[in-house]
Amino acid sequence: MIIPRLTVIGVGLIGGSFAMALRRAGAVGHIVGVDSNRDNLIQALERGIVDEIAEDAVSGVSAADVVFISVPVCAISAVVQSISVALPPGCIVTDGGSVKAAVVSQCDALIPHNCTFVGGHPIAGTEHAGAAAAFPELFSGKRCVLTPGLTSDTNSISIISQLWAAAGADVCCMESGHHDRIFAEISHLPHAVAYALVHAVGTADVEGENVLSYTAGGFKDFTRIASSDPVMWRDIALMNREALLTSIDGFTASLNELRRRIENSDQAGLTEFFTTAKQFRDAIV
Amino acid sequence: MIIPRLTVIGVGLIGGSFAMALRRAGAVGHIVGVDSNRDNLIQALERGIVDEIAEDAVSGVSAADVVFISVPVCAISAVVQSISVALPPGCIVTDGGSVKAAVVSQCDALIPHNCTFVGGHPIAGTEHAGAAAAFPELFSGKRCVLTPGLTSDTNSISIISQLWAAAGADVCCMESGHHDRIFAEISHLPHAVAYALVHAVGTADVEGENVLSYTAGGFKDFTRIASSDPVMWRDIALMNREALLTSIDGFTASLNELRRRIENSDQAGLTEFFTTAKQFRDAIV
Repeated sequence: MIIPRLTVIGVGLIGGSFAMALRRAGAVGHIVGVDSNRDNLIQALERGIVDEIAEDAVSGVSAADVVFISVPVCAISAVVQSISVALPPGCIVTDGGSVKAAVVSQCDALIPHNCTFVGGHPIAGTEHAGAAAAFPELFSGKRCVLTPGLTSDTNSISIISQLWAAAGADVCCMESGHHDRIFAEISHLPHAVAYALVHAVGTADVEGENVLSYTAGGFKDFTRIASSDPVMWRDIALMNREALLTSIDGFTASLNELRRRIENSDQAGLTEFFTTAKQFRDAIV
Repeated sequence: MIIPRLTVIGVGLIGGSFAMALRRAGAVGHIVGVDSNRDNLIQALERGIVDEIAEDAVSGVSAADVVFISVPVCAISAVVQSISVALPPGCIVTDGGSVKAAVVSQCDALIPHNCTFVGGHPIAGTEHAGAAAAFPELFSGKRCVLTPGLTSDTNSISIISQLWAAAGADVCCMESGHHDRIFAEISHLPHAVAYALVHAVGTADVEGENVLSYTAGGFKDFTRIASSDPVMWRDIALMNREALLTSIDGFTASLNELRRRIENSDQAGLTEFFTTAKQFRDAIV
C-alpha cells in the first residue's frame, strides 16, 4: 500500500478510473469521493469506485493523505482554495488538468504551508464521461506527466509518481511551461484547427449549397475532435492562451508556406512539403 | 444489360471495383482491362475482375461501348489523347478523377467528334490500392458526381448514370467548377490543413524536444490523412489550384477569427465559435 487514504474530487471518467486502478493495485486503503453531481457520486459508490462519499469537498479531505482533483481545468484552483482550510498537515494535493502552468502557479499560492501541490496530467481519455464510464485499465501504458511546483518536495513527487505507476501509467516529470508548450502543439492546436476547419467549411458559400452534405468518412474522421465539449475547450484555450497563440502562429506559417507553393504551382516544393509531413506522420504510428 | 463492352484503363481499387460491381449487377457483358502495371493487370485477370487484358490502351478500347479511365488525375487527359485515334464511333469515355473542371475541359478538346466525354467522381475509397484491394461493394450507398462537359449528350449522361447506379452509387450531376469548389472545401482543404498541421508540429521547436513523441491516439486519428500519397495530393492541389486557394483563404479567415477571440480572452466569443463548429460537425454524423 502506498497511502492509506485517498480523496477524489470529481469522480468522473478520469477520477473514477484513477480510484479503480489504485484499488485494484492495492495502492490505497480507503477512498472518499466528492462530486458536485450527486447522482454521479451515488453511482460511483454503487460501483464500488469509492468506499465513502462526502457531502462536500471540505469534509471529504479532512483525513486524506492525497487529494486528487479531477474537475474542469479552470475550476481546479477554486477547489484548492475551498479545501485549503480543511487539509490535514502533510496532505499532498494533485490534479489531472490538461493545462499546467496556470494551474500550478495558482495552486502554489493557495496551498497551505504544511501541505504540497504536485501538478499532473494523465494522457488518457475516451469520448465518454462520468463514473459510469470509468474503468481501471484507462491509464494502462499511457503517459502521465507530472509538473512539480514551488511546494512540491521529493516526497510528494515520489508518492504521486508511485500512485500513477501503480495505476499503470508511464510517468515523467517536466516544467509546467514546457508541458504547456508541448500540449499546445499536439493537442490544443489540433483542436483549434479542427474547430476552425469545420467552422470554415460549414459557413463556406459555394453557390448557396450546403457543402457539408457531400462529406464522406474522411471528413468525419478528420473533424471528430470538433465534436468535443465547447466549454472544456474554451477553458483550455484561455488557460493555455499564450502557448496556444504561438502554436497557431507556427501552424499559420506552415499553411502560408504550403499556400505559396500551390499558388506558384511549385511541383517540387509541393512534393517536398507533403513528403516531409507524411514522414512526420508515419513516424508516430 | 446496360452495355455489351466496357474497357477499364487503370484496374486499381476504383477501376477494379467498378468492373466487379457492374459484372455482379449484370450491367456489362465483356470487360477489357488496361494497366501500365503488368503484375496488377494479371492479378485483375486472375481475380476475374476483367475478362481480357490488352497490351496497351489503343488496342484495349477498339471495340468498347464505354471506356472508364481510372488513373491519377493529372494523367487522364493524356490517356484520352492517346486513345482518341482508336475510339470506335459512339464510344462514351468517362473518368473517376477527384478534380473535374480541368479534366473535363482538357478532355472536351481531345475527344473525337463522334464520341463523348462525361466527367465522373465516385466518392469512395479505402487506404488500400491495386486490383488486389478491389471489391464490388465499394460504391454501395456512396455518392457519385457526374460533371457533363461540352460533348456530353443526354444519352451518354444516361448510360454513365445507369452504370454507376448499377454499381450501387447514388448519382448526381453538377457543373464541373461547382464540383471543384465543393471538394476543395470538404476534401482538398482538409488534406492541406492536415499536411500543414503535421508539418508545423513536426518542425516546432519546444526547447529542442521532439513533441511528436508525446502524441496519443487523438493526434494520430486527426492526422491520418497526412499519411496519404504526396504525389497524388500534389497533383490534386495543382489541378484544383484556384478553388483550393479560395478554400485555404476561407479557412485562414476562420482560424484568424478564432485566434483573435483567444488573444482577447473572449469567453463568450470562444463558446460561440466552438459551439457553432460542434453543431456543424454533429449534423453530419
